Amino acid sequence: MLEILTSVGSLWIVFVAVIVSILGAFFCKKFVDQASPGNDDMVRVQGYIKQGANAFLKRQYTTLGIFVIVVAVLLGLIYGLSDITHVATWLVVFAYIVGSGASAWAGWFGMRIGVDANAKTAWAANKEDTEKGLDDGFNVSFFGGCFMGLIVTAAALGGVWALFFFTGNPHAILGFSFGASSIALFAKAGGGIYTKTADVAADIVGKIEQSLPEDDPRNPAAIADNVGDNVGDIAGMGADLFDSYVASIFAAMLLGFAVFSSGVIPSNGHILSLSDGQLMAALPLIENGAGLFASIIGIYLVFRTATKDPSDALNNGTYLATVLFALIAAIISWGLAATNDEMAGQIWAAYWTSLLGLISGLVIGLTTDYYTDDRRKPVRAIAASSEQGHALNILTGFSYGLMSIGPPVIGIAISMYVAYEIQGIYGIAMASNGMLAIVATIVGNDAYGPIVDNARGIAEQGGLDEEVIRTCDRLDSAGNTAKAITKGLSIGAAALTVLALLYSYVEDAENQLFEKTGTLGSFVDEFNIIDNPLILIGLILGVMIPCVYSAILIFGVDKNAQIMVKEIRRQFKEDPGILKGESDADFNKCIDIATRGALKELTVPSLLSLISPVIVGVLFGIPTLGAFLAGSILSGFVFALLMSNAGGAWDNAKKFIEDGNYGGKGTLAHSASITGDTVGDPFKDTAGPSINTLICVLSLASEIFLPLFIAVNDGMGLIG
Amino acid sequence: MLEILTSVGSLWIVFVAVIVSILGAFFCKKFVDQASPGNDDMVRVQGYIKQGANAFLKRQYTTLGIFVIVVAVLLGLIYGLSDITHVATWLVVFAYIVGSGASAWAGWFGMRIGVDANAKTAWAANKEDTEKGLDDGFNVSFFGGCFMGLIVTAAALGGVWALFFFTGNPHAILGFSFGASSIALFAKAGGGIYTKTADVAADIVGKIEQSLPEDDPRNPAAIADNVGDNVGDIAGMGADLFDSYVASIFAAMLLGFAVFSSGVIPSNGHILSLSDGQLMAALPLIENGAGLFASIIGIYLVFRTATKDPSDALNNGTYLATVLFALIAAIISWGLAATNDEMAGQIWAAYWTSLLGLISGLVIGLTTDYYTDDRRKPVRAIAASSEQGHALNILTGFSYGLMSIGPPVIGIAISMYVAYEIQGIYGIAMASNGMLAIVATIVGNDAYGPIVDNARGIAEQGGLDEEVIRTCDRLDSAGNTAKAITKGLSIGAAALTVLALLYSYVEDAENQLFEKTGTLGSFVDEFNIIDNPLILIGLILGVMIPCVYSAILIFGVDKNAQIMVKEIRRQFKEDPGILKGESDADFNKCIDIATRGALKELTVPSLLSLISPVIVGVLFGIPTLGAFLAGSILSGFVFALLMSNAGGAWDNAKKFIEDGNYGGKGTLAHSASITGDTVGDPFKDTAGPSINTLICVLSLASEIFLPLFIAVNDGMGLIG
Repeated sequence: MLEILTSVGSLWIVFVAVIVSILGAFFCKKFVDQASPGNDDMVRVQGYIKQGANAFLKRQYTTLGIFVIVVAVLLGLIYGLSDITHVATWLVVFAYIVGSGASAWAGWFGMRIGVDANAKTAWAANKEDTEKGLDDGFNVSFFGGCFMGLIVTAAALGGVWALFFFTGNPHAILGFSFGASSIALFAKAGGGIYTKTADVAADIVGKIEQSLPEDDPRNPAAIADNVGDNVGDIAGMGADLFDSYVASIFAAMLLGFAVFSSGVIPSNGHILSLSDGQLMAALPLIENGAGLFASIIGIYLVFRTATKDPSDALNNGTYLATVLFALIAAIISWGLAATNDEMAGQIWAAYWTSLLGLISGLVIGLTTDYYTDDRRKPVRAIAASSEQGHALNILTGFSYGLMSIGPPVIGIAISMYVAYEIQGIYGIAMASNGMLAIVATIVGNDAYGPIVDNARGIAEQGGLDEEVIRTCDRLDSAGNTAKAITKGLSIGAAALTVLALLYSYVEDAENQLFEKTGTLGSFVDEFNIIDNPLILIGLILGVMIPCVYSAILIFGVDKNAQIMVKEIRRQFKEDPGILKGESDADFNKCIDIATRGALKELTVPSLLSLISPVIVGVLFGIPTLGAFLAGSILSGFVFALLMSNAGGAWDNAKKFIEDGNYGGKGTLAHSASITGDTVGDPFKDTAGPSINTLICVLSLASEIFLPLFIAVNDGMGLIG
Repeated sequence: MLEILTSVGSLWIVFVAVIVSILGAFFCKKFVDQASPGNDDMVRVQGYIKQGANAFLKRQYTTLGIFVIVVAVLLGLIYGLSDITHVATWLVVFAYIVGSGASAWAGWFGMRIGVDANAKTAWAANKEDTEKGLDDGFNVSFFGGCFMGLIVTAAALGGVWALFFFTGNPHAILGFSFGASSIALFAKAGGGIYTKTADVAADIVGKIEQSLPEDDPRNPAAIADNVGDNVGDIAGMGADLFDSYVASIFAAMLLGFAVFSSGVIPSNGHILSLSDGQLMAALPLIENGAGLFASIIGIYLVFRTATKDPSDALNNGTYLATVLFALIAAIISWGLAATNDEMAGQIWAAYWTSLLGLISGLVIGLTTDYYTDDRRKPVRAIAASSEQGHALNILTGFSYGLMSIGPPVIGIAISMYVAYEIQGIYGIAMASNGMLAIVATIVGNDAYGPIVDNARGIAEQGGLDEEVIRTCDRLDSAGNTAKAITKGLSIGAAALTVLALLYSYVEDAENQLFEKTGTLGSFVDEFNIIDNPLILIGLILGVMIPCVYSAILIFGVDKNAQIMVKEIRRQFKEDPGILKGESDADFNKCIDIATRGALKELTVPSLLSLISPVIVGVLFGIPTLGAFLAGSILSGFVFALLMSNAGGAWDNAKKFIEDGNYGGKGTLAHSASITGDTVGDPFKDTAGPSINTLICVLSLASEIFLPLFIAVNDGMGLIG
């Protein structure tokens, strides 16, 4: 037994976890497959959604394919022309293509099952006995989400494991991670613009102007709205977490090599036994293997012991996975430590920093939840202020959004401090790994949300009973509560991961300079805020990037929504039968507007986030670019929190009013709360989460283009 | 002649400039005094405004008085108990009290003349010949504003000059500057909350619910709104610029000593001749003396050659002052350089960095103006989106606000880089001095705005002709255009000043540690982002502060406005005669709500901004506190730009619609644009400008409490 936990043996645990995860995913798929998609209307609506989602993904992937080829050629040129030796050019290019392919495949496959599960959830919920309906509906949607969670994790962890096992080269993982990030960038921005274009337009004309209920089939934007949930909140979200997950493993792995291999990052071949540096580089993989087992067992236990309350069930899954992670990782650490006397201290330290990360992520989630929970003061205050009109709703939500930045910032500062005290910069990286150790559970819970959201829409459009729609609403609200807690993990992990990437960027730069000049570099010394004015300049420029980036995304949603609003008004005007339910609305026009708009609007911000680090690095050199990254992390973290939390609070304030408070539907308060919700839509589902991807891509791009920067004036840039 | 420009002689130029400025101020006052305040109704309304403004200032100053005494005692204790020798305890305490007194006095006196000039402007504009009315109205309001500009500058520059001349000790100036900042913090936050509480409430009930025109006497909040303009936009703005102005001189002065006196900051007595370090410390004073002369001559020329267009007149004043500054400062530099061979290079370098600052401030202003000018795309797009309702108006404005962060950030980065290349950190400080060299013109143009705004209100409430109100509107719009350009100078100066303060804080810390331990300190080495995790932690915590601070301010406005909205609705309901114009509205209730609310809401944020650096400094030590300052500067700059520009753009989009575009008044577009304007009110007039004061206070507090931090573990804090 002990042998498995030792040396290279422990790496096989990761392989087994990946295999079990794939088996689990197909078990989930089978469960979803055997459920019935319901009546003809439902099948028809589901068909439209499938068609729209697939069409968008196809067009998005075509654009992406071209992009990936161009970047692959660029990487080939940069690595081929430079005289680096730490990694073969073909390996970087290959890993990059595999990384983007794996992420795209997982996103597409996960979404396919998600789109399948929606109508089935609605039909399963359609029971005489509503409690039975709730149970059955929950199971279908839960497994639909779990499929996504397991397949994304298996693809990510499996890919990293294979590259590490067969090449032993962290720079191969960098290529893989950068590939995954490229996909995430497009998927998150494109999906985010798509989903909110439809949502905002549907709300403005449907809810405010015509007082139609949510998801009403008479609304020409209803199907586009459902498609958006799938491409944005399932495929986009999956790509986003795939990206953070791989990046956090890569950062810890590189730092493991850099810190524990006397400062020089090796480029080994096929791994047969682990050196100290390799062991520390393998630890993030191993901890995440433990986390994957924990998630799988957690999912199984939730399924076996499903409580009456779906919200409890989801949260229990998260808490169970956390406890199981603590146990499984402890057992593995014990085995590893027992057979590696010298490194025992570091192995246990890595265990504690991972656990610290996971627990502080949960605490951040619970604290942040205060700002978006409708039983708490902030959401109540926003609802109350809506009685005084649109402007005060916005001001109240915005100020609570700003305030909500406080607790997570303090939480991250404390985790960072403690992790550093335990294990230095490697400890910070391990804390970010811990936050994402149960990523299968996080993705699963997150994907559950849009499935039940769609189920509700299909139930409404398929003419099912009010009772079924209420059941779907209960399922939906469980998804929101679960998301509030897992959100803390993703936001915290995004922040710590990019901090770890910043350290890994600097370590890597030092190593590559050493490789070129033979003398140990001194980039680190340049990172002084006071001594080197370029550091402050880098920080200021970096701070600007997330602002401009989110401006472009929000503006993209805004612009497309205006076009769609006009289209919906036109349809209502030209064919009054639509509103009476006598003729069919033209869904395809809206789907087309959302598709074209999203693809058009994602290009500029995506290119900006790839080109800006290259410009800064070539002009000002490696230290200024590092400061630029730090600046983007600082403002990115703050704006992501502001936008996510303000958006969530506005959303729930609207729901609180729709539940009959402050006069309920049809009042000024309701109308003002819809304004808040609409403003919050692109905040929380387009710009906010895209910022996480942005800062991750900026960091990875800076690191992968290092050979280029080193070539310019030994990394000091044209001006610097 | 040359003798005056040499050595200590050049300091007398500053004294003369101050004297001329005071004479000029009283000439302006005389001009305003002799104008007639108009008919009985106008005198009555003006009386209400005066009474309300004075009552608020009195209560604010009482609170402030207590605060100043407490801080003075604290400073006495800290300086008295520590064993520092670089400055006498009594001198710090004395300078602190004088600084706060001078700022409070200038704010109050300037506001008094401003409140006097408003009715007189309206009456002067009340002419058969509208062009003559425009001319005469312009002159009264222009001189009312200039009085404020000249008196604020004279008090600030005079105070700094006297302390420097008689003590030669930069730490006396620090005390003076911190005193001025304490006042600015309260004046800006309190005035900002006051003015926007009234404005928001007046708009919501008056404009949206009852369709009353702006400033309608039936609106119970109309007088409170006018009072707010005076306490917020005149007294508060004056205190704010007094603060930045003195801080920028102090930073450059301290760096002059630190950089050019072999690293150790002296504590000389009465200045009889200038050493190299003293000369460089005196240069910011001298450049600002040149700037004050330039402003005075500019004001005189505007008066003599008043063009037909008030907007051109104000802007010509700014451009003239800029050109005159370039000339006068060149002559003085030439004289100084001719008699100081060794320092000639540095003297000219300081001239060029100042000029660079002034010109880049103007360029930033002109660029930023793009985002708020109603002839440009952003404002037009916001207006257009209003047709699609409230939410899209907000989203469009918000995204343009985010985009507007780009150009000034790049502008500041370039000025900083160039200034540093010319003259190091001292050059950055001199660039911030240059931006504020013509502060008399800036304050004058800024104070002109609320005077004509009030004039319009009084004309409306005094029953003057529509024609006169239109003339006042023309005067008002000139104020807005002029402000757009001077705003660039204040925002740019705020950013560069705090950067210079950050450097001066570190230099000062090194010196004080040397004083205590006898060995040259090594704080600077600790400021490494990569090596020292506490620096990243400090940055993250610092970034959070402006967010939480503006959240509290916006929420304060929001809360008070809701109370006032209810009060106005109550008055309209209980006495229907008010709306018919048959009975008088109860102005005092609204004034009371605004006064109490503002005083209550300013306490928490003000204390936060004083206590937070003390906590960070004592816990984590001097380097982490420096990073904390840097973080607050980074996010402060970004949020100040976002809020000012989004707010300005929403305001102008509303005006653009009110001018008859997109259907004009009474349409959905108009109502949505009022929502945007209302959201923008506390953005641009409460939180946005208060952030500038906040980051300045944080920096000065950190520096003045240095003896306390040095006492804790030699400046490394309890944990650090």
